[in-house]
Amino acid sequence: MNEQLRADGSLRHLITLENLPRPLIERLLDRAQSLVRPLGARPPVSRALAGRTVANLFTEPSTRTRVSFELAAKRLGAEVVNLEVQLSSRVKGESMLDTVFTLQSLHIDALVIRDAEPGVPGTVAAHVAPHVSVLSAGEAHVGHPTQGLLDALTIRQHKPNFEKLSIAVVGDIRHSRVARSAFHVLRALGVADLRIVAPPALMPEPGEFPGCARHTTLESGLKDADVVMMLRIQTERIAQADLPDAARYYASYGLTSERLALARPDAIVMHPQPMNRGIEIASEVADGPRSVIRDQVRNGIAVRMAVLNEVLAGRSAG
Amino acid sequence: MNEQLRADGSLRHLITLENLPRPLIERLLDRAQSLVRPLGARPPVSRALAGRTVANLFTEPSTRTRVSFELAAKRLGAEVVNLEVQLSSRVKGESMLDTVFTLQSLHIDALVIRDAEPGVPGTVAAHVAPHVSVLSAGEAHVGHPTQGLLDALTIRQHKPNFEKLSIAVVGDIRHSRVARSAFHVLRALGVADLRIVAPPALMPEPGEFPGCARHTTLESGLKDADVVMMLRIQTERIAQADLPDAARYYASYGLTSERLALARPDAIVMHPQPMNRGIEIASEVADGPRSVIRDQVRNGIAVRMAVLNEVLAGRSAG
Amino acid sequence: MNEQLRADGSLRHLITLENLPRPLIERLLDRAQSLVRPLGARPPVSRALAGRTVANLFTEPSTRTRVSFELAAKRLGAEVVNLEVQLSSRVKGESMLDTVFTLQSLHIDALVIRDAEPGVPGTVAAHVAPHVSVLSAGEAHVGHPTQGLLDALTIRQHKPNFEKLSIAVVGDIRHSRVARSAFHVLRALGVADLRIVAPPALMPEPGEFPGCARHTTLESGLKDADVVMMLRIQTERIAQADLPDAARYYASYGLTSERLALARPDAIVMHPQPMNRGIEIASEVADGPRSVIRDQVRNGIAVRMAVLNEVLAGRSAG
Repeated sequence: MNEQLRADGSLRHLITLENLPRPLIERLLDRAQSLVRPLGARPPVSRALAGRTVANLFTEPSTRTRVSFELAAKRLGAEVVNLEVQLSSRVKGESMLDTVFTLQSLHIDALVIRDAEPGVPGTVAAHVAPHVSVLSAGEAHVGHPTQGLLDALTIRQHKPNFEKLSIAVVGDIRHSRVARSAFHVLRALGVADLRIVAPPALMPEPGEFPGCARHTTLESGLKDADVVMMLRIQTERIAQADLPDAARYYASYGLTSERLALARPDAIVMHPQPMNRGIEIASEVADGPRSVIRDQVRNGIAVRMAVLNEVLAGRSAG
Repeated sequence: MNEQLRADGSLRHLITLENLPRPLIERLLDRAQSLVRPLGARPPVSRALAGRTVANLFTEPSTRTRVSFELAAKRLGAEVVNLEVQLSSRVKGESMLDTVFTLQSLHIDALVIRDAEPGVPGTVAAHVAPHVSVLSAGEAHVGHPTQGLLDALTIRQHKPNFEKLSIAVVGDIRHSRVARSAFHVLRALGVADLRIVAPPALMPEPGEFPGCARHTTLESGLKDADVVMMLRIQTERIAQADLPDAARYYASYGLTSERLALARPDAIVMHPQPMNRGIEIASEVADGPRSVIRDQVRNGIAVRMAVLNEVLAGRSAG
Repeated sequence: MNEQLRADGSLRHLITLENLPRPLIERLLDRAQSLVRPLGARPPVSRALAGRTVANLFTEPSTRTRVSFELAAKRLGAEVVNLEVQLSSRVKGESMLDTVFTLQSLHIDALVIRDAEPGVPGTVAAHVAPHVSVLSAGEAHVGHPTQGLLDALTIRQHKPNFEKLSIAVVGDIRHSRVARSAFHVLRALGVADLRIVAPPALMPEPGEFPGCARHTTLESGLKDADVVMMLRIQTERIAQADLPDAARYYASYGLTSERLALARPDAIVMHPQPMNRGIEIASEVADGPRSVIRDQVRNGIAVRMAVLNEVLAGRSAG
C-alpha cells in the first residue's frame, strides 16, 4: 500500500506525503513540536543518532534546506557528509545507482536527496538495502515532504482545527512541489476548504489537486482565508503565464496589505523562501505582524529532526 | 559608542578593531596566547561551545581563513556549517537579510562572514537577533579584525613593548583591509611610530591612517624598523600603481635581504598570505630566520578560538 | 630505504605501495579486516583519533574517495576539514608549499591529497614537519595506495593464498594508478601469475610491470584467471587505442559473461569504480554473482581507517 512504511507501520522512507496515514503525520508533528525552541533559546541536542551517518546529496552546495538537514542530523549526534551530485536518472542511468550503492557500502544510514528530475528518490528507495532510508529534500515539481510537514506544523501552531480552515495556496501551482506536498498533508489533516490561486497558464492539470477550488484572481481566492501560502515564482514562468513582466505579475498576484485585508483578520501568511519581494509578496506583508515565515524555518529543522529520528532511531542495531 | 559591545562591556560582534577598548584587546590577546601551542604539539580542545553552532558564510569554498575559523569552532566543541554565499547587499537587497534570518531561525549562534562589498557585516549585525554574533572574516578593503589581532599577537610574542616599536606596513595600503586592521589595533596598543610604505597611487586618502608617516620608497620606510609587515599585491594593482610590471614592482617595493638590512638587526618580517614570492617578497626573506609568517597562521587559530569563546561562551543559556 | 617509514618501522606517510614491507602490508590488512562489517551492521566507531585533525585536499568537491576518507577519519573521532585545492607544483610553485605550511600551522595531523600531477604527494611529504603525515588519495597515473590495499584485502577475503593466484588486470594499464598500486601490493604479497591485458597502445612502457605477462586479447588474458580486475577506460583513451568507438572497445575488451567463462569457475570480478557499464564491463557481470565490486567499497573505508590509525594513533602526544 505505502512503500514508505515498514511492516510495523513505522516510517522508513519519506519521499511523498501522499497517502501517508494521518496518525503517522500527527506523530511526526507532535515530535517536531516537542523539539521547537523559541528564537534565542538553545536548540535541543541529543546523541540519539550517535554512530549513524547521513549523506546529503544535493545538486548545489549551499541551499538552506541542506543546512537545515545537516544541522538536524548533527544535533541528533549523527555524522553528516555533503556531496554535490546530479543523480538524474536520464543522464547517467545505472551510474546513479552505483553512486548510491557506494554510499550504502560506506555504511551510510540515510540519503537526503534533492534532484531536479522526477522519480529519482523513489528509484533510489526501490534499490537500497533494507537498513537504508531515503528522504526527499525536494523532487522536481513532485514533492517536498519535509516542507509540507513544516507548513502543517506552522499552521497547527496558530490554527489547530484543520477541519474548519480555509487555506489559499497562491502562485505557480503547476510547477510547485511545495503546493503538492501542502495539498497532500493538509488533505490528510482534514482541511476541507483548500483553494489554489494562479494565473490560468500556471494552473495544474485538471485531474490534479482534486476537490480544491480554483481561482484565477487573487481577490476571490483570498476571501475569508485563514491561511495564505504564497509560492515563489520563477521569473521565467512569468512570461509563460502570459504576463508581460514581474511588475504585472505583482499587480495581479502579489500579496499586498490591501489584498491581505480580504482574508480573515487573523489570517497568517506563509512562504517557503527564498522570496521575491515585490514580485509575489510585498515586503510590508513578508515582514508584517501576520507573517509566520521565519517560524517556518525554525519549524523546518524540528521537523527534520523528527523525521530523521523516526526513520533511523527506531531501527534495530544490526 | 561601540555597537560591537554588550552593555556589560563584553564583545558581541567583531566587525572592526576601530575604537575597540584596549583592555578588551589585551584580554583577547591574553586568552589567545594561552591557546597557542608549538608546532607538533596537540592543539587545545575543549567543549566550551558544545551545543553552539557557527556558520561560515564565505564567497569561496576553500580559503585558509575559512579553515582557520572552522577548526577554531570545532576545537571548542561547536557545530560548524559552511555555506558559499554572496551576501552583497547591492545585488540582492533584502534577500541578504532573508538568508541571515533563515540561519538565525536555524539556531545559529555566530555568523562568520567574508564578503567583497563594504558594509555587509555591519548591516547583518544591525539586524540579527540579540543572541546572534557576527564576525567579519574580511570585509572589502575595510577591515579584517581577526587578522589584526593575530598580527598584534605575533608582534607581542617577539616585541612586547608596543610603545617603543617602529612598524612599517608595506604595499597596497590603499586597498588593504589587513593594513587598516593593523593600524587600528596597533594604535590602540600604543604604537607611536607606524609607517605606511606604498607607491604614490596605492597610498590611502589623505585623511586616512592619521599620524602615520608616509613613505613612497621602501628604503626610507624600512629604516630602523622593528617590524616589517608586507602586504599582498594584486597583480591588477601593479599597473594601477604606474609600474610597468611585477618585475618593476619587485625592483622598487619587493622585500629582499639587502633591503631588510636597513631595518633593525632583530626586525621581524610578517605577511598575511598568500604570498606572491618574487613580487612583494623574496623567498629568502619569506623563509628566512626573521620571518614569523608561519607563526601568524598558528596564532590566527588561537585568536579565532579566543574571539569565538568571548562572543559565545559568556552568554546566558537562553 | 623507504622514506614513508619512521625509524621504528611504523608507517608515517602512504604515497606508494612500492617497496612497502610485506609485514607492514599484512598488518594493515589484518587491522582493516577487523574493521569490516557486513552491509546493514553498524560500522565500528571509536575515539582513537580524538583531538586529531585530517585535511582532505581534493581537486574536486564530491569524490567518493573523499567521502570514504572523511568517514574513516570521523569514525575514529578525528576532526575533518575539506578543501578544494589544486596543489599542482608546475602551476603554483612554492605556493603549493605555502598552502601546506599553513595547514600544518593550523595543527593538522594528516593531509589526504588527490592531485592530477605526478610528484605532488611526495614533494609535500618531503617538506612537512615530522608530526604531519601525507596520504595519497590518487596521484596522476602513479599510484593510489589505499585502492591497492583495498583490492588486496578484497582478494584475500575470497582467495587467501596469493602465491597460487592468477590475476588479470584489464584495461588502460598505461594510464592507471589503480593498476600500478595493484601491481606493487600483489607482488609484495607473492602473486606470481600477474597478467596485464590492454590494447597495444594502452600497454605501459616496456620496463614497467616487470614479470607480468602481457596480453593484447582479453581471451588469452582471462584464461583460468582466479581474479579479474577491470579498470575504468576514459572515453578519450579509446580513440588513442586505435579503436573507433566505445562499442568497438566493448567488443574487444568489455567483460561479458561469455568471456568471464574463460576464467576459473570461482573467479571474482573487481572494478575500482566509477564503472562505464557497457564499455569496459557488462551490467550482467558488474551485478552478477561473481562481482565483489561493492565489497571493495566497504573494504575501502576499513583500509582507510586502518591507515589513518597506523600513521596517527601511534604517535607520541607531542
